[in-house]
Amino acid sequence: MERIVYLNGEYVKETDAKISIFDRGFLFADAVYEVTAVLNGKLVDNAGHLARLERSCQELELPLPVSAEQLTQIQKQLVKLNQLEEGGVYLQLSRGNAGDRDFAYPVDTKPTLVLFTQARALLDSPKAAKGMKVISLPDIRWKRRDIKTVGLLAPCMAKQAALNVGADDAWLVEEGYVTEGSSNNAYIVTNDGTLVTRPLSDAILHGITRKSLLQLAEQAGIIIEERNFTIEEAYKASEAFVSSATTFVWPVVEIDGHKIGSGEPGEIAGILRKIYINNAISSAE
Amino acid sequence: MERIVYLNGEYVKETDAKISIFDRGFLFADAVYEVTAVLNGKLVDNAGHLARLERSCQELELPLPVSAEQLTQIQKQLVKLNQLEEGGVYLQLSRGNAGDRDFAYPVDTKPTLVLFTQARALLDSPKAAKGMKVISLPDIRWKRRDIKTVGLLAPCMAKQAALNVGADDAWLVEEGYVTEGSSNNAYIVTNDGTLVTRPLSDAILHGITRKSLLQLAEQAGIIIEERNFTIEEAYKASEAFVSSATTFVWPVVEIDGHKIGSGEPGEIAGILRKIYINNAISSAE
Repeated sequence: MERIVYLNGEYVKETDAKISIFDRGFLFADAVYEVTAVLNGKLVDNAGHLARLERSCQELELPLPVSAEQLTQIQKQLVKLNQLEEGGVYLQLSRGNAGDRDFAYPVDTKPTLVLFTQARALLDSPKAAKGMKVISLPDIRWKRRDIKTVGLLAPCMAKQAALNVGADDAWLVEEGYVTEGSSNNAYIVTNDGTLVTRPLSDAILHGITRKSLLQLAEQAGIIIEERNFTIEEAYKASEAFVSSATTFVWPVVEIDGHKIGSGEPGEIAGILRKIYINNAISSAE
Repeated sequence: MERIVYLNGEYVKETDAKISIFDRGFLFADAVYEVTAVLNGKLVDNAGHLARLERSCQELELPLPVSAEQLTQIQKQLVKLNQLEEGGVYLQLSRGNAGDRDFAYPVDTKPTLVLFTQARALLDSPKAAKGMKVISLPDIRWKRRDIKTVGLLAPCMAKQAALNVGADDAWLVEEGYVTEGSSNNAYIVTNDGTLVTRPLSDAILHGITRKSLLQLAEQAGIIIEERNFTIEEAYKASEAFVSSATTFVWPVVEIDGHKIGSGEPGEIAGILRKIYINNAISSAE
């Protein structure tokens, strides 16, 4: 079945959803995005995603053409039209088609707003059950990783480099410390059971799932340290895992060939995944 | 007059030139580009641009769907169809529409090849005559600036930040040293007449105009030092200028409010601009 997608005020067939080659999203990666998970046909943590979208837009002097309420309506309409039970809704706002190519931001250009659904099994995930093998790579991304832009070639390269050597994903390392995964936040659990993850800064994406997860972990009595950790510390951790909007929590069982803990998905990762999903299902809208 | 542009094998009106919202150039900035200057209806330094395009493609495991000879034919055809005398031909190759959004490189996806012309006065340029005022900004770009990708949001932000404070452009600074301008290579001339520019590495674009310009400068007997220079050294330089495919050489007369030399366009910049243009006109194809 062909998807119905949203493009600038209209619901169209996915094969009809086309933008100008002069769109600044295409020419300059001058665009921001969000992905909201869908469980049981409902949006997970969506208010957080839309708040982050507004922040990304502010950082780029990119006016959001519709309100958060309208965006939510569009997201729900797409879920309905595509009978999406499980997966995600992708949202991208670019600065639009300025007619000619110029690095400076154009004035009075109508932005391009695109949303589409992606069906995907989130709950019953092989990676969640078996865990991921990751490799570490230098973090070559730009310095404003807190702005969620479509300038994603470096993460694509990292992901592909991992796949090329038989791993599932990459953890990015800067000045010896892990920043995050190619498209997820990174965590370790130390041998005394402390959950460690890098504190928020321009160096990492301010994960919406990360935020919820840390709140839930705290409520569950898990000790949390938001601090930088090295890749060597990760090798020796008792557990490692990642979080993102559509993976929730995926355990990491191997880093650069080093088995993490027993080499099996960790207990705390499993508990957090369960807690997060239960909360997501009950609070999804 | 509406432009005729090239899109995946066809010459179409610019308003009809549309790509899928699922194109990886739009979703991931998974695309490379080149700009070739046009003078008197002929292509300037084009072999260098196409060689760099091939290198960018190799770095990204992105197969070029047509040969350099075919690309040149398309460029020439566009110049002819649009009766372009002066300006540039823009060329962008993206990894194409993979149908669904996934960071990993898709297999067997047809790339998207786009070319269009831009009419612009290159020889009779106010910036060349009067010089530019630049501000320095931290270089927040990714670490592979030698790959010419469309992940250009950071340079757009820098350019816009310069315009916002009444300057013309930004010079980017990393660990105290100037890397390059927002979309051009940066040079200073020391008080003893030595031309200084940053050596090639992953930190800067390997400018095609830079390469030709350095060769011509050497032939003209100018002493060249390819070394890092600080922004403070630039403040005290006797001249400063930039080079790029469509600006050729533009003098810089002010950096962060510091007048460079007399505050007027420098003599060596003027000589190099003249030499470059003469050579470009005689060797354009």
